[in-house]
Amino acid sequence: MKPVPIDYDTVREMLRTATPDRVLRFIGKSHPADIALLFKGLQAAEIRQLFDILFSSRRAAKTLKELPPELLPDILALIDDEKVGRLIVRADPDDAVTFIDSLSDDRRERVMGLLDPERQAAVREIINYPEDTVGRLMTTEFMALSPNTTAQGAIDKIRERGELETFFYLYVVDDAGKLVGVVPIRNLVIAPPGRTLSDMMISDPVKANVFMDQEEAARLVAKYELLALPIVDEAGRLEGIITVDDVIDIINQESTEDMYKMVGLAEEDRVFTPVLRSVKMRLPWTMLNLLTATLAASVVSLFENTLHEIIALVTFMPVVAGVGGNGATQTATVIIRAIALGELEFSSAWKAVVKQVSVSICIALAAGAVIALAALIWKGNPYLGLVLASAMILNLGLMAGVAGAVIPLLLKSLKLDPALGSGIIVTGLTDAFGFLSFLGLATLFRQYLI
Amino acid sequence: MKPVPIDYDTVREMLRTATPDRVLRFIGKSHPADIALLFKGLQAAEIRQLFDILFSSRRAAKTLKELPPELLPDILALIDDEKVGRLIVRADPDDAVTFIDSLSDDRRERVMGLLDPERQAAVREIINYPEDTVGRLMTTEFMALSPNTTAQGAIDKIRERGELETFFYLYVVDDAGKLVGVVPIRNLVIAPPGRTLSDMMISDPVKANVFMDQEEAARLVAKYELLALPIVDEAGRLEGIITVDDVIDIINQESTEDMYKMVGLAEEDRVFTPVLRSVKMRLPWTMLNLLTATLAASVVSLFENTLHEIIALVTFMPVVAGVGGNGATQTATVIIRAIALGELEFSSAWKAVVKQVSVSICIALAAGAVIALAALIWKGNPYLGLVLASAMILNLGLMAGVAGAVIPLLLKSLKLDPALGSGIIVTGLTDAFGFLSFLGLATLFRQYLI
Repeated sequence: MKPVPIDYDTVREMLRTATPDRVLRFIGKSHPADIALLFKGLQAAEIRQLFDILFSSRRAAKTLKELPPELLPDILALIDDEKVGRLIVRADPDDAVTFIDSLSDDRRERVMGLLDPERQAAVREIINYPEDTVGRLMTTEFMALSPNTTAQGAIDKIRERGELETFFYLYVVDDAGKLVGVVPIRNLVIAPPGRTLSDMMISDPVKANVFMDQEEAARLVAKYELLALPIVDEAGRLEGIITVDDVIDIINQESTEDMYKMVGLAEEDRVFTPVLRSVKMRLPWTMLNLLTATLAASVVSLFENTLHEIIALVTFMPVVAGVGGNGATQTATVIIRAIALGELEFSSAWKAVVKQVSVSICIALAAGAVIALAALIWKGNPYLGLVLASAMILNLGLMAGVAGAVIPLLLKSLKLDPALGSGIIVTGLTDAFGFLSFLGLATLFRQYLI
Repeated sequence: MKPVPIDYDTVREMLRTATPDRVLRFIGKSHPADIALLFKGLQAAEIRQLFDILFSSRRAAKTLKELPPELLPDILALIDDEKVGRLIVRADPDDAVTFIDSLSDDRRERVMGLLDPERQAAVREIINYPEDTVGRLMTTEFMALSPNTTAQGAIDKIRERGELETFFYLYVVDDAGKLVGVVPIRNLVIAPPGRTLSDMMISDPVKANVFMDQEEAARLVAKYELLALPIVDEAGRLEGIITVDDVIDIINQESTEDMYKMVGLAEEDRVFTPVLRSVKMRLPWTMLNLLTATLAASVVSLFENTLHEIIALVTFMPVVAGVGGNGATQTATVIIRAIALGELEFSSAWKAVVKQVSVSICIALAAGAVIALAALIWKGNPYLGLVLASAMILNLGLMAGVAGAVIPLLLKSLKLDPALGSGIIVTGLTDAFGFLSFLGLATLFRQYLI
């Protein structure tokens, strides 16, 4: 399988003019990950053609599973039920679930009905695990042997079974199916033929419960540098494994999710998602944003009299609000990333808040001094500078520090994603509080400002 | 090695009262990744004690390499030169480079001088590769054999060499050291003893040049689901490998970098970085932010007359600016993430910009309608609503869409990080342009607004 991008225009041309066999010969030696990329820009009819070519050579499942998850639904929507059913039968169990998940709700049951009872049961078992748990993601293709198997016996069993795609460890289970150890395949290679697995296994290995959140499982794999993580049920029985390539997908997905949720984007809103679908996903967040902006606006409207009296204040409003908003977003980003990487526990949350607020206050003192000086030079009024600096300290120092640190932690303690809309929330708060402190102080000291 | 967190308070208590041997017995069975976590909260004297205990049992290198990179410099700063030198001699070559990189500039040469010439040369060779290239990151611990080695011969060689930490593939090289193929270790296990490596190898495997950017290499490993990526020099000679656990670190590091750079944070600014160090890193960005905010402020000051005449306008300024800023950040996030995940090439950049601007315009039409209605109800003036809606369409629709999509692409075309300060830049632009369009239109139509 050659890891070389396929020339897209040639394939398009061939789909129009060449026989399916010739197309297959052209793309056939390429890696499924590269073939999958072809689907990205093709028209509906071309997608069906390409799918049929891959399907008839039994490569459709292997190729489609490489697609980014947001593209899969559109492609499966173009393929008829019967073919999708056969695709699912041929796929590995975990990929079968991915395909089923990408079908529209009404189609899902219809396609499930086309599967043989055994496969149907296997798929239903995995689908029953809640989303984002490792049970939903694991593959049931692993090799488990009993502790008294010898190294040679294990090698014979591996030969019998043929090549497993995901095969870095042998799992050792007792009579009840309980996981008791793992043998890295490299240890098997160098072991004397007669040695038993129980003599060479790592006992009490790192494992995860079927209901563990996928992000937590990914952190385990990263921390202990594993190639695969065994997944066990409540009784400790081995149910499946998740492999390091799944973990990379999880890590990328969770990073996208964090970045997206901070600014109010849905995960499916990708660079080439159709315009109307993107609009539909962004609208609710824009409306929330209008609401938080209206909060800031209503604070401003409280001070119309002061503003009318001292119109120069208006000029500095964006400074207090803008710098506060960015400070709050910075703090929120540090906290969200620390939670995501497992560097911050609730037990040390208080310490983290104190530290972030201290940083914000120092930054605010410096920024306040600069802006006070700028106001003095620009408008020639030292009191305006003092009011500005004080508002900056209150907003960028206190509000931005506290809101940026506390909002993500609060969201997490409510069992929500710590990033969820946090960018919108904290900038809304710093806008409103920035205007309140600046215009409030200006009103109090207005005799010095006129 | 038990994958169980160690009770932190017990260790602290033991460091005060127990003998080094007892401490070692208590923590000794734990995984280095868990032992490393202990360093996070200890005092200087305790860190030295713990280091000495690990050092004397030859576990210091394995443990310290598990530390998050931003903690390592502080810990090495507490250890004397001679011990750091011996630590570096005992470490794997890639970890040795990590340790050297974590020393202060003046110390680096001093410690290098303590190494034997051979190790010094090896370290210098890796350190000469530019930062963020795979050459800088690769390990030189791999197993390369000639194509006519038999399966049994290979297994014997592996036995001789002992256990390699990173060992998933055998690399097949010709007489000149050129990489010609890889043999996954699982294939070796099931091969007949007499078969040669050239008969079972995957020829022309995925590989990377020593100067490839680490992010690009990580994408290759993720795309082709590899466990290790061979690194070759210009002549195709095998120089080293990077393993999937390094790739996970790269992916996490690059995601942090993107999130951080968007809002103007330095990568070393972590949740528990000392306050003054965080302040020092955030100050330059805050000053840039003050500058962009001042741009917005000077736009506002142009319209002081209009504002003085129609003070109600002030109330709506934060709405136009805030919603525009968030829209621009959303668009920038989509583009930055697509670039990071390799989903967006320059060739399709134009298409991406058109799509994002279309989305922004649709969103702006909806938000404009809502705000126009709100203004009508609140202030009873339909013209104010029209001006607001038009400004919203110009700012959220055009400016936010264009700036959010173009700024990251522009940064990338300048060979800078597409995320670099993009949050600060785009919100600065939408603030300034939002005020310009809103107050500009209001000035043009002021007879209808009074």
